[in-house]
Amino acid sequence: MQVAKDLMQYEQLAQEALRDVVRKSLERAAGDGLPGAHHFYITFRTSDPGCDIDESLASAYPEEMTIVLEHQFWDLEVDDAGFEVTLKFGGVPKYLKVPWRAVTRFHDPSVGFRLHFDYAAPSPDDTPGQGDTR
Amino acid sequence: MQVAKDLMQYEQLAQEALRDVVRKSLERAAGDGLPGAHHFYITFRTSDPGCDIDESLASAYPEEMTIVLEHQFWDLEVDDAGFEVTLKFGGVPKYLKVPWRAVTRFHDPSVGFRLHFDYAAPSPDDTPGQGDTR
Repeated sequence: MQVAKDLMQYEQLAQEALRDVVRKSLERAAGDGLPGAHHFYITFRTSDPGCDIDESLASAYPEEMTIVLEHQFWDLEVDDAGFEVTLKFGGVPKYLKVPWRAVTRFHDPSVGFRLHFDYAAPSPDDTPGQGDTR
Repeated sequence: MQVAKDLMQYEQLAQEALRDVVRKSLERAAGDGLPGAHHFYITFRTSDPGCDIDESLASAYPEEMTIVLEHQFWDLEVDDAGFEVTLKFGGVPKYLKVPWRAVTRFHDPSVGFRLHFDYAAPSPDDTPGQGDTR
């Protein structure tokens, strides 16, 4: 039996929908903190034009980096565009701004929950100056 | 190794997020029609207070019913609360109104795509008169 081509693009629709789980999880962490043993590994494309990270991080991780939100994170803020957080790297606090579309993996090892997302770089028209807003 | 209790309720977050796939699919069907061989089997709780269906259908399907959106459906409309559509039953057109929370299964057999949702009846406070708006 031949399976028809998926003209509805369900896989893509599901991925887009599931990004909301990342958002809701970060909103909860920003509001009440992380409950119990929960902690997040978040992988994102540092090359995305909407990412705002320190130059030292950008050169150390030119394509992708994984951050951990567990005990030590500050100023976590979540909005429609993405999230911002300050984390320490080698004892030095660094600010990161990450748009949702740049997130490629979300993993909570405490319960073995994982999400993967395909990355599509935005066309220049999609991000008018987003990388330049700070 | 003991897996921690999921205090984040990821399964529930994912289900809520994936309801958006049902919405997007119905929006597309309402706008452009169903592409290619795509068609939807949608199962919902007829007992949900937000459902508005013909009495004959309600008595034939007091708990749950499955509708098919394929060639013959009319006046499909989608909004934040749910969807409305007119389908023929035994040659007679009947209007149905279904809130998103009442949907328990979505299935597109053309590509073998399926979603399942747990049903939680709303508390009386959640639906002020929703069942009585027509």
